[in-house]
Amino acid sequence: MRLRNSVPENVVAAARNAAGSTPAERAGWLSAVADALDAAADELVPLAHEETHLPVAPRLTGELARTTFQLRLFGEVLRDGGFLGATVDHADPGWPMGARPDLRRVLVPLGPVLVFAASNFPFAFSVAGGDTASALAAGCPVVLKAHPGHEGLSTRTGEIVTAALAAAGAPDGLFSVIHGVEEGVAALKDPRISAAAFTGSVPGGRALFDIAVSRPVPIPFYGELGSVNPVVVTPGAVAARGEAVAAGYAGSLSLGAGQFCTKPGLLFLPEGHGLDDVLHTAVGAIARQRLLNDRIASGFTQKLAELRSVPGVEVLVDGDQQDFAFAPSLFTTTAEEFLAGGSAVREEHFGPASLIVTYPGQAALIEVLDSLEAGLTATVHGETGEAAYVRSLLPSLTRLAGRLLWNDWPTGVTVSWAQQHGGPYPATTAPTTTSVGTAAIERFLRPIAWQGFPDALLPEPLQEANPWHLPRRVDGLSQADPGRHRRCP
Amino acid sequence: MRLRNSVPENVVAAARNAAGSTPAERAGWLSAVADALDAAADELVPLAHEETHLPVAPRLTGELARTTFQLRLFGEVLRDGGFLGATVDHADPGWPMGARPDLRRVLVPLGPVLVFAASNFPFAFSVAGGDTASALAAGCPVVLKAHPGHEGLSTRTGEIVTAALAAAGAPDGLFSVIHGVEEGVAALKDPRISAAAFTGSVPGGRALFDIAVSRPVPIPFYGELGSVNPVVVTPGAVAARGEAVAAGYAGSLSLGAGQFCTKPGLLFLPEGHGLDDVLHTAVGAIARQRLLNDRIASGFTQKLAELRSVPGVEVLVDGDQQDFAFAPSLFTTTAEEFLAGGSAVREEHFGPASLIVTYPGQAALIEVLDSLEAGLTATVHGETGEAAYVRSLLPSLTRLAGRLLWNDWPTGVTVSWAQQHGGPYPATTAPTTTSVGTAAIERFLRPIAWQGFPDALLPEPLQEANPWHLPRRVDGLSQADPGRHRRCP
Repeated sequence: MRLRNSVPENVVAAARNAAGSTPAERAGWLSAVADALDAAADELVPLAHEETHLPVAPRLTGELARTTFQLRLFGEVLRDGGFLGATVDHADPGWPMGARPDLRRVLVPLGPVLVFAASNFPFAFSVAGGDTASALAAGCPVVLKAHPGHEGLSTRTGEIVTAALAAAGAPDGLFSVIHGVEEGVAALKDPRISAAAFTGSVPGGRALFDIAVSRPVPIPFYGELGSVNPVVVTPGAVAARGEAVAAGYAGSLSLGAGQFCTKPGLLFLPEGHGLDDVLHTAVGAIARQRLLNDRIASGFTQKLAELRSVPGVEVLVDGDQQDFAFAPSLFTTTAEEFLAGGSAVREEHFGPASLIVTYPGQAALIEVLDSLEAGLTATVHGETGEAAYVRSLLPSLTRLAGRLLWNDWPTGVTVSWAQQHGGPYPATTAPTTTSVGTAAIERFLRPIAWQGFPDALLPEPLQEANPWHLPRRVDGLSQADPGRHRRCP
Repeated sequence: MRLRNSVPENVVAAARNAAGSTPAERAGWLSAVADALDAAADELVPLAHEETHLPVAPRLTGELARTTFQLRLFGEVLRDGGFLGATVDHADPGWPMGARPDLRRVLVPLGPVLVFAASNFPFAFSVAGGDTASALAAGCPVVLKAHPGHEGLSTRTGEIVTAALAAAGAPDGLFSVIHGVEEGVAALKDPRISAAAFTGSVPGGRALFDIAVSRPVPIPFYGELGSVNPVVVTPGAVAARGEAVAAGYAGSLSLGAGQFCTKPGLLFLPEGHGLDDVLHTAVGAIARQRLLNDRIASGFTQKLAELRSVPGVEVLVDGDQQDFAFAPSLFTTTAEEFLAGGSAVREEHFGPASLIVTYPGQAALIEVLDSLEAGLTATVHGETGEAAYVRSLLPSLTRLAGRLLWNDWPTGVTVSWAQQHGGPYPATTAPTTTSVGTAAIERFLRPIAWQGFPDALLPEPLQEANPWHLPRRVDGLSQADPGRHRRCP
């Protein structure tokens, strides 16, 4: 059977036209999309609620605000122009390895990008989410594979995005939405697709990664998969503010019904922490929340059963369940039992559950940390007086994650210049990249060096007079920022 | 049978120790290696000549000079510090998507890197070549899989590198040389290896890529594979300086006996160019050169036979052969025959041969260019008066390559800040990266964001006072370069 392929006919023409656009033109497109989505909030948020069961406010309204903010922030990235990495090496007959020709380097769009939307953020990691925003900012057409958990919302969002792009003068074929597993796989195999991005589970992401790298022409696959997000609480933090830590933990692990890739799945507490009652009260007070869909609910139920059956794992809070709605469950074990516990204690549970691991001392704590798979985040709750203690944990925590947090909780991922949402596998399939924050644009750009060209044939970012007033590196020296108000056309 | 694995026991400890080093310390290590190799030139160059049959001067002496220059240039990269990408976002309660925590991002070493050495550059793309230099600069241990074509040189170079690193105070286990196909494969599968780099053939590189991405934990595989390096000569250039173009072409296609990944494999000439005699004379005058080894010679012989048998391909110069030494061969065909010619006319021939393709007009030229696989370079020889003609070729040429050249030849790859040696598959397996030039370091770094940490626990690049005087982006604005003479410790 031949798979249906929904990649639009004009995607290659769109890629060529988008590659010829200026960064400021693309900033205009993104801004138009953001405005159109904001204007449609009263229509989109109820639709999202209906399909995902996520609460309207502040959850979905906040997520839509985050999504349109993100589109506008990539507009700032485009006006700044530093993302182009413009680099000029003038000809140098005295270059020590031999005469150097005039050589100038700039980044160009990679080509059409296939984006697989996530289930758990129907706006921010879906049709007009971070992968779409960063790919469009880079100048790449986007083919968006909708998530089946919110198909109506996806179709409607896609219509709004497409209309806004057209009205803003973007090339035809720059954005399209496709539906269906077979269609997604066919698109992933399409030779016109230059890269793919994905947010979802480890098994799903790995299956798609395997397809992407097995193509006759393999392509980059930016998958953001799983993470257990360990949180270490030091003895000092327990003593100084154990109750506050317990309350923060309860809130973080149950946010979004535990369906966040940054949910704290493991909490490391010193043995004899004395917080069991406090934790029981804090977590036990949280009401049932409905999970996104049937498939996620049954997967979560199975993971809970596996965890329960591990020798040495005890139930601290037995969250009740009604239909697809779950109250949070909390488990506890020791470092020793954890090390013997196999994959059930180490894997992500996508839903409201978390595991406390008690450690007898720092050596055992480090041993357990060093046995974990890498993930998106690692957190320390400590006291400033414990700097030496914390410093000795940092090499292990750095190995484990792309984002480290101090006295905070990993849920809630800001979108900014310094954000890093990624990490070694299985956190992602591309450890050098991020899927959130302005650096996400780097995934969809490739470098071109121009050797010996006359100025008139060079692209504007590389012309001698620097007509776009870009920050550039010239003959090895980075030039001062030419000022925020004289940026890319 | 269990494969022998030669990854050193202490490679993880070395990775941790190297991650704790300062950029300036690493610059010192690289400088010590460069000095030691320069001091051993009288020993190494004859050894290289003996094993590769490449001419001593200027070929091998120049390649060693390039290699040590490259090590020192990465020292400059380290002292500059821009490669760290240090980014500071201060806490901002008014951040439009919701209060922003203090967030700071910096790049850290990826971990131990396995480097597969190439056959054709026994210094510059081998034991102490660009992959090794950039990985060590990033702070990653290197396990170097020697190329069997120059094992004695590899062993001796490895001894010199290891001794120089030890004398400079680098961590034990930072660098090691392994030999053997099975050992290389076992190392590629070793869970302690975080990334691999390779320069060589498409089949060899693809086989290793497939292993790297099939691991339980897949890793980045930076393969630099094949390239045909098309060169377009415009009607104006033929008229103005056809003989000079023919002479330059003959020199470039036969440089290093045609065993360069940037050899011009295709020359596009306008129909009726009238240069056949000039080309015949220029290419026919070049003496036989010995190929690197038996395997390359037999592969080249086979490719020549395939090309000869393509309908419509004519022999313009029939290079003679004696043992493993070949004089260059030159073939010619038309755009029409080329489009029907299948893979034999499109694939790289690793040795002294090239194919001329005559085109009736620009539309046919673009049709052929758009039918080519991507590669490392694409070149135009034209006249400044033909700017419009050339501009209409640029989208096709940009799609095809990572480096574009004007009135120059693709062989000879300078090492500098703006260099780009890469391109879409099959040029490389990682189109967003380069294996030559200072940006090569980016392949071996991954980002870490630090959220909410007190200054005393932050790494130096992110501390508020910027003690290393790094160029940084702060709250979205890139800070002026603090000056070349106050760089990383």
